[in-house]
Amino acid sequence: MVVIRGVVVSKQLVYDPTGTRYIKIDIIEEKELPGPVAAFSAQDEQAAQLMREVMPLVTQIVRSLPFGGGKISVPRVTLWLTDEEVEIFGDVDVGETITISVEGGVISIKPES
Amino acid sequence: MVVIRGVVVSKQLVYDPTGTRYIKIDIIEEKELPGPVAAFSAQDEQAAQLMREVMPLVTQIVRSLPFGGGKISVPRVTLWLTDEEVEIFGDVDVGETITISVEGGVISIKPES
Repeated sequence: MVVIRGVVVSKQLVYDPTGTRYIKIDIIEEKELPGPVAAFSAQDEQAAQLMREVMPLVTQIVRSLPFGGGKISVPRVTLWLTDEEVEIFGDVDVGETITISVEGGVISIKPES
Repeated sequence: MVVIRGVVVSKQLVYDPTGTRYIKIDIIEEKELPGPVAAFSAQDEQAAQLMREVMPLVTQIVRSLPFGGGKISVPRVTLWLTDEEVEIFGDVDVGETITISVEGGVISIKPES
């Protein structure tokens, strides 16, 4: 079983050609971007020592660049619910946390209580 | 509880900025387009009789036009699953039927067995 911590980032009103109204709900997952990975051979003890000293500075510089670090959002689930279904499921708002569980043969989506 | 009979219409391989691979699965619901609705006052019995005779022909003509009738597909759920999640959930293929149940506080998605 895999549990994903999703966040509602968008709610939108859409209509199909028959005029039925749907609430489109976008749920994303926030992911940490991995920092730069230090790949160097540690054969030379002095070089290894130097790298260890320089790495924090490099990480700091990369994080200050746009898209150089920090968080990204990955779309995980989008739902189109009719007014009736929203009433049964319960209204969720932008910013709310949604738990998505993947089990054998079933995916369950529920608001975090 | 509302049960929606969904159909997988698209499977797509997408990557996030960290290089993680996701299978994007689009699930739609097929809906019948309502035919033309006969709206006329039945005050005149002869006119009403004429309408009843003409309606089947009108319906037939409308259905033969593009988008004039028949089925439309409405998007209901889109999922982005990692390889691991696809393995746990079970692989679904294009054209397969998926049951979407909306209950108090929970939406469950599972392939029709």
